[in-house]
Amino acid sequence: MQPLQQQNAGYDRAITVFSPDGRLFQVEYAREAVKRGTTSLGLKSKDGVVLIVDKRTVSRLVEAKSIEKIFQIDNHIGVATSGLVADARALVERARIESQINKITYNEPILVGGLAKKICDMKQMYTQNGGVRPFGSALIIGGVNGGDAKLFETDPSGALIEYKATAIGSGVQAAMDVFEERYEDDLSLEDAINLGLDALYEATEGKTTSQSVEIAVIEIDTQTYKKLSGDEVSKYVEALLERNAEEEEEEYDDEEDVEENSDSEEELDENDSEESSEE
Amino acid sequence: MQPLQQQNAGYDRAITVFSPDGRLFQVEYAREAVKRGTTSLGLKSKDGVVLIVDKRTVSRLVEAKSIEKIFQIDNHIGVATSGLVADARALVERARIESQINKITYNEPILVGGLAKKICDMKQMYTQNGGVRPFGSALIIGGVNGGDAKLFETDPSGALIEYKATAIGSGVQAAMDVFEERYEDDLSLEDAINLGLDALYEATEGKTTSQSVEIAVIEIDTQTYKKLSGDEVSKYVEALLERNAEEEEEEYDDEEDVEENSDSEEELDENDSEESSEE
Amino acid sequence: MQPLQQQNAGYDRAITVFSPDGRLFQVEYAREAVKRGTTSLGLKSKDGVVLIVDKRTVSRLVEAKSIEKIFQIDNHIGVATSGLVADARALVERARIESQINKITYNEPILVGGLAKKICDMKQMYTQNGGVRPFGSALIIGGVNGGDAKLFETDPSGALIEYKATAIGSGVQAAMDVFEERYEDDLSLEDAINLGLDALYEATEGKTTSQSVEIAVIEIDTQTYKKLSGDEVSKYVEALLERNAEEEEEEYDDEEDVEENSDSEEELDENDSEESSEE
Amino acid sequence: MQPLQQQNAGYDRAITVFSPDGRLFQVEYAREAVKRGTTSLGLKSKDGVVLIVDKRTVSRLVEAKSIEKIFQIDNHIGVATSGLVADARALVERARIESQINKITYNEPILVGGLAKKICDMKQMYTQNGGVRPFGSALIIGGVNGGDAKLFETDPSGALIEYKATAIGSGVQAAMDVFEERYEDDLSLEDAINLGLDALYEATEGKTTSQSVEIAVIEIDTQTYKKLSGDEVSKYVEALLERNAEEEEEEYDDEEDVEENSDSEEELDENDSEESSEE
Amino acid sequence: MQPLQQQNAGYDRAITVFSPDGRLFQVEYAREAVKRGTTSLGLKSKDGVVLIVDKRTVSRLVEAKSIEKIFQIDNHIGVATSGLVADARALVERARIESQINKITYNEPILVGGLAKKICDMKQMYTQNGGVRPFGSALIIGGVNGGDAKLFETDPSGALIEYKATAIGSGVQAAMDVFEERYEDDLSLEDAINLGLDALYEATEGKTTSQSVEIAVIEIDTQTYKKLSGDEVSKYVEALLERNAEEEEEEYDDEEDVEENSDSEEELDENDSEESSEE
Amino acid sequence: MQPLQQQNAGYDRAITVFSPDGRLFQVEYAREAVKRGTTSLGLKSKDGVVLIVDKRTVSRLVEAKSIEKIFQIDNHIGVATSGLVADARALVERARIESQINKITYNEPILVGGLAKKICDMKQMYTQNGGVRPFGSALIIGGVNGGDAKLFETDPSGALIEYKATAIGSGVQAAMDVFEERYEDDLSLEDAINLGLDALYEATEGKTTSQSVEIAVIEIDTQTYKKLSGDEVSKYVEALLERNAEEEEEEYDDEEDVEENSDSEEELDENDSEESSEE
Amino acid sequence: MQPLQQQNAGYDRAITVFSPDGRLFQVEYAREAVKRGTTSLGLKSKDGVVLIVDKRTVSRLVEAKSIEKIFQIDNHIGVATSGLVADARALVERARIESQINKITYNEPILVGGLAKKICDMKQMYTQNGGVRPFGSALIIGGVNGGDAKLFETDPSGALIEYKATAIGSGVQAAMDVFEERYEDDLSLEDAINLGLDALYEATEGKTTSQSVEIAVIEIDTQTYKKLSGDEVSKYVEALLERNAEEEEEEYDDEEDVEENSDSEEELDENDSEESSEE
Repeated sequence: MQPLQQQNAGYDRAITVFSPDGRLFQVEYAREAVKRGTTSLGLKSKDGVVLIVDKRTVSRLVEAKSIEKIFQIDNHIGVATSGLVADARALVERARIESQINKITYNEPILVGGLAKKICDMKQMYTQNGGVRPFGSALIIGGVNGGDAKLFETDPSGALIEYKATAIGSGVQAAMDVFEERYEDDLSLEDAINLGLDALYEATEGKTTSQSVEIAVIEIDTQTYKKLSGDEVSKYVEALLERNAEEEEEEYDDEEDVEENSDSEEELDENDSEESSEE
Repeated sequence: MQPLQQQNAGYDRAITVFSPDGRLFQVEYAREAVKRGTTSLGLKSKDGVVLIVDKRTVSRLVEAKSIEKIFQIDNHIGVATSGLVADARALVERARIESQINKITYNEPILVGGLAKKICDMKQMYTQNGGVRPFGSALIIGGVNGGDAKLFETDPSGALIEYKATAIGSGVQAAMDVFEERYEDDLSLEDAINLGLDALYEATEGKTTSQSVEIAVIEIDTQTYKKLSGDEVSKYVEALLERNAEEEEEEYDDEEDVEENSDSEEELDENDSEESSEE
Repeated sequence: MQPLQQQNAGYDRAITVFSPDGRLFQVEYAREAVKRGTTSLGLKSKDGVVLIVDKRTVSRLVEAKSIEKIFQIDNHIGVATSGLVADARALVERARIESQINKITYNEPILVGGLAKKICDMKQMYTQNGGVRPFGSALIIGGVNGGDAKLFETDPSGALIEYKATAIGSGVQAAMDVFEERYEDDLSLEDAINLGLDALYEATEGKTTSQSVEIAVIEIDTQTYKKLSGDEVSKYVEALLERNAEEEEEEYDDEEDVEENSDSEEELDENDSEESSEE
Repeated sequence: MQPLQQQNAGYDRAITVFSPDGRLFQVEYAREAVKRGTTSLGLKSKDGVVLIVDKRTVSRLVEAKSIEKIFQIDNHIGVATSGLVADARALVERARIESQINKITYNEPILVGGLAKKICDMKQMYTQNGGVRPFGSALIIGGVNGGDAKLFETDPSGALIEYKATAIGSGVQAAMDVFEERYEDDLSLEDAINLGLDALYEATEGKTTSQSVEIAVIEIDTQTYKKLSGDEVSKYVEALLERNAEEEEEEYDDEEDVEENSDSEEELDENDSEESSEE
Repeated sequence: MQPLQQQNAGYDRAITVFSPDGRLFQVEYAREAVKRGTTSLGLKSKDGVVLIVDKRTVSRLVEAKSIEKIFQIDNHIGVATSGLVADARALVERARIESQINKITYNEPILVGGLAKKICDMKQMYTQNGGVRPFGSALIIGGVNGGDAKLFETDPSGALIEYKATAIGSGVQAAMDVFEERYEDDLSLEDAINLGLDALYEATEGKTTSQSVEIAVIEIDTQTYKKLSGDEVSKYVEALLERNAEEEEEEYDDEEDVEENSDSEEELDENDSEESSEE
Repeated sequence: MQPLQQQNAGYDRAITVFSPDGRLFQVEYAREAVKRGTTSLGLKSKDGVVLIVDKRTVSRLVEAKSIEKIFQIDNHIGVATSGLVADARALVERARIESQINKITYNEPILVGGLAKKICDMKQMYTQNGGVRPFGSALIIGGVNGGDAKLFETDPSGALIEYKATAIGSGVQAAMDVFEERYEDDLSLEDAINLGLDALYEATEGKTTSQSVEIAVIEIDTQTYKKLSGDEVSKYVEALLERNAEEEEEEYDDEEDVEENSDSEEELDENDSEESSEE
Repeated sequence: MQPLQQQNAGYDRAITVFSPDGRLFQVEYAREAVKRGTTSLGLKSKDGVVLIVDKRTVSRLVEAKSIEKIFQIDNHIGVATSGLVADARALVERARIESQINKITYNEPILVGGLAKKICDMKQMYTQNGGVRPFGSALIIGGVNGGDAKLFETDPSGALIEYKATAIGSGVQAAMDVFEERYEDDLSLEDAINLGLDALYEATEGKTTSQSVEIAVIEIDTQTYKKLSGDEVSKYVEALLERNAEEEEEEYDDEEDVEENSDSEEELDENDSEESSEE
């Protein structure tokens, strides 16, 4: 990160302008805001789309259900977010409005890709016009159109890519490594959830519990967004923890990581103070 | 706090823009304004929501009732604030208008969470558009919808979290420590008030008197915001002081804190001169 | 004041933005403009509100009556100002308009507190929006509603506090010391005027004459703003000077303050050149 | 003037903002523009108001009558200006419009004080809003309302003071010294003109001629603005020169000021090149 | 690139302004953004226009079909893009709207050149007005009007040139070298596709596969935009790879480039992380 | 000029603001633009007004008649300009419109002084509002009202002075010296033209030819603007050259100025390259 | 060029403002953009106006006809441009609209000089208002009104000069030297074309071919803009090359310029990369 800081003296203070090598620093810094967020991910299965987010809270005083990182946009579309929570909420509001406008205008549900493009158009404008800053949030947009599962990711630049499986936030690299290695096209919904949880487990360095995970699915059959109940989530997470307990046991003989553990606890405390503005 | 000052040369002068590591300094500085304010706190009990604020005045010439840190927004919603008082009042005005608009439009009281989101939307806009600065105030929004007590906290970024018990202002750490240790879900309203006062006592380093405290409750039964009378407050505070007198007696043999006492008096004088703009 | 100057390099040049420790320098500098103004003060008595201002002129060529530091806003409300006179006049204009609007809309006189809030709302906006600077004036707003005397003070931040007795301008500390020591709740109007003049005498280091003082009262009985006539003022000031002559005689044996006297004359000359823009 | 230049690095470049000690540098600099202007003055007499200006021209090619420093605003109001001539003319235009608006709206002549406030309101706005600079002109506004002579002075801050006798421009100190010493309340109109010319004579270091002076009076009897004819002016100026010739003769034995004389001639040449933009 | 960075201190921070030697740095930096993009190219043949783009993805998890670098604008017009993908999409949206407006207004398809000019007008405005940055995208606009194939290229300045064959993006030099050497006016459509693929092969340093290539044609006969199917593309790419395999074999004896290979793999990884914002 | 450059670091970059000594640098710099222009002059005679301009062209390829430095504004008003030609033309356009508006509104020709004030109002606004720069042109406005010849000069500040004879542009000092010495009030039109040409001859260091001079007169009798024909101009210039040839002969014995001559030729070449933007 | 760069630190970054010596740097830099463009020229003959441009392309892949440097504005008016091509096109668009507006409003063709002034008005506005930059293009505007040929040149300042023969762009000096030496007023159209080509030949250092030249004429007889066909151009260029071949032969014995040749080829390559934005 340091070479980046030295290279850009002056190009990042004013409105979003190009640097001599053709980069938009304000957009790249906004991406850093996303990288500081919690991990969110999405996968396509042959039965529909799965969205999973990490919503660990650092305090038992927080009402966990108020930490919104998965949002329903329309009957058939959901969104998982990472980055600045207030920016994400502003984009979600916009997405819901666009969705309703489409329904009223054309009398049919908005295409998942069409909605994703609308959000990206809005994001792009905030990178080209003066007097505003880019949005500091990335979105994973999942949904079902006709018989097809759709899964898009947008970043602060307003770029749009469709993925089979993707992740955003601080654990992006760990999660993508899991997907690259193990994702297959013909996963069942259940397999997809399990694979997603495995990826989240890696991304959070094992700090995954029934309370810290939220899962939503949009099945092709029902074409309907559904958040899994606490019990359903618990079942999947217990299985996850069992899988990893076995694994860890196997690894246990190899290394001692007591010190590392206390480190990560410290890290948890640090995140604590910033929890309110980044997911 | 010092490393923060060195890291950010230049990113904090213009409109709200991202720093290379994805932070919005103007928003973080606005949070500092909140941390300089007096302590306000809120708790949910099984009977309703409790809001408590510290409104110590440094001069007997101030009409204590004019130090507004708790505001009624609607029949069933109240707000406790900390930070810049003028900013808080502007947000409270907005909240009252949104509440009335909802009543007129839908002919029913606004949801506590819905109102909280409206306030956060306004706050977020002030962090993304040029030509304005973020609001330097945090709000604890408490209320009752149907049979449920609700308690939200917003910060200058426009982030929104629901809490069981929370605090804002200069005594946030001390108060939250009390809550983390002793808060329970099934508190009666009276227990909640007592716990809140204990937290405030810690947050203000013991400078809590009948005159310096204001308490409001929104009970689930009545669904109505009610400020406790001076007598009611006195009763609770006397009990608080008795509790702590006993405790202190026990501690008395251990340490001599005469010098510390004179320090905190000095501090009171300092706060005095800034009392008019920060709560 | 010097540590303040060193701490803030850069945060005070642009529009009103937060410094790293959460302060709004432009607002604090505007308060300095108030501190450079002449002393104005207000007191509540059991019979009504008293406003007293120092309008010493440095030249006999000035028409003393044109130095407006007390303004009538409505039948039942008056205002005493300090700081930039042009800014004060702009706020007074606004206050008069708000008062008329209220009368026309609701067919009854505006509440003193309601008017004070309107002024503060305007002041707050000038601290948050770009392209303008905060108002460099503080106001003491006094009036009577129903049977109650009301006395508010606003500063450039838009903060609002109700006082029993308060002062603004360069002599604020000296005047408040007098009030803290001697103010009582059940003062008669006459006692209040005498106490106010004693405070002004201290605040102006004894430079109080019949010509340099202006007094307005809003009595609870009449609910009407009334400026005291020159004769009435003279009577009070003569009594004041007698009181102090006696006192000084007593002190005379203790110390020689010839040198100090010549200093304060010099100071008068300095103020002279800036008299036209700050009260 | 030099300490002022060192103290203010940075606070004077952008829009009008406060310096750490509560000053508005752009306003103070605008006052400097007034101090660079020629001397204008006004006096009240028991018969009416007198306005006198110095309109020396450095070239015989200038049509002296085109050097406007006294302007009629309404039947009963005149204005003497100093500072940037183009700014003064813009204010005079505004004043004339306000005067006509008042006549049409209320069917009676505008109050002199009311007009002065309108001009000051406009000036104040130009010190608080971004994107404009303050007016670089001071005005002496004289007129008659009912049986009363009125004489106001405004400076670039928008402050307003009523005077018995006042002066603006480069000779302000010398002129005010004369007024402080010799002004009396019951001057006849003729006495007032003579005193004013004496003050102008000092302010211009003796460079007063029949051609360089313009005098306007608004008498209480007629309530009408009247510019003195060349002959009338000559009569007064000749008397002035005689008075001073006598005086100088008396002083002649005491000192030799040949060197000083050549200095002031040089100064005249300097002013020459800037004559077109400052009065 | 370095001399460019040293030469321009200060001219690139504000809005788009001229440097002393008459250059617009923001426009030149936007061109750098294009040079960082993937390679896109277009050729005219005697039968119509061919557009070919490189849409290699760095991850098997990306839905390759979502990487849009060729867009249909109208029945008879297509566009190949390079540079910032969000900017490109904004221009494509605009192009589609202009095309529909023309159809509705004149009841006939828009001229390819007319559309290209509309896009360039928009781009030019973004280089001359303050508060916006130039578009960071270049477009190759191909289409058919009457019996003529048309092929335009626009860059961030809003300049417009018609080409027989052209390329944009990081491989522009390599591709243009191929065209300069081998392009002929009377190419058949098939020959044009083959030549285009040869150019892309050079531009991507041999990293061309059936999956990484997208081809669109607008034939003069049909006047209709058509994207080649996966099978059609495969056929052409297989032939390409065969051609090059033979060539490489011939070259194989001459040099060993193992090391170079590992380099280019590394480069692929680098591009990976930026894939989402640049094509 | 150098002390000016050192004194003003920083006050000249932004919008037009005051410097600590009360100057408006952007206005002073705009005056420099006028001083870089060619010489224009105007004189009043007892028969009317004379305007004379130097329109030397550096190339025989220029159509001399297209170098407009004298413009007719209305039947009875003409204008001679110096400074930035494009700014002058914008002001001339405005003047013509104001003139027409007056004619339509009041059904009589505009007063020369009234028109001059309108132009100055426009100029003043461009020195006080942000986002624009002052006009870089001075105008000599000549005309006839009733039986009176009128001659005004405006500079970039918007100041307005009436002259008997005046000059603007690079030769202003030389021309004014001639006028100061030799101008008389009762000149005939012919005498005025001859005196004007003598002044221009000095101002241009003798580089005056029949082709380089343009003369316009507005006679009191006809009240009509008239440009002198080429023949008329030639007659006057020939006389001028004869007068100076005689003079020079007389001077010839005294000094040798060969070297100086070659200098001034060089200067002509320099002006050449800037001819297009400054008159 | 270097002394210019050192002289102007700071005056060129913001909006177009005056430098201490009265120059507008942004305008001067825009002129540099014109000087970097290709050479365009225009001549008046007794039969009409001739416009000639250099449209050499650096690649055989460019459709030469798309390099527009001569534009028809109206039936009787054409324009030759140099500088930023996108800016030129924006001005041409405007010119065409003004021309149509005139036709519709007055039912007769616009005067060539009238159109030229409209363009210059637009250019001037872009040098005086903030938030925009000046146009980086010069135009030669040729046309016929009644029986007269007209030829104007505008530069980025908005200045306007009528020429008998003129040139813009990088070869301006060489071309003007040819015109100064050889232009005569009574040239036939054919002679004018030949002289123009001779000038272009010098301006391009001999790099003139049939393909690189475009010629348009507006004859007085027809009053109609006509572009010469390829054959017509070829005939003139062949004659040009013959003329120069003879000349060169004569010169051949005198000097060897092989080295110079290779230099100019290099220069061609350099221009190549910038061809797309400057003509």
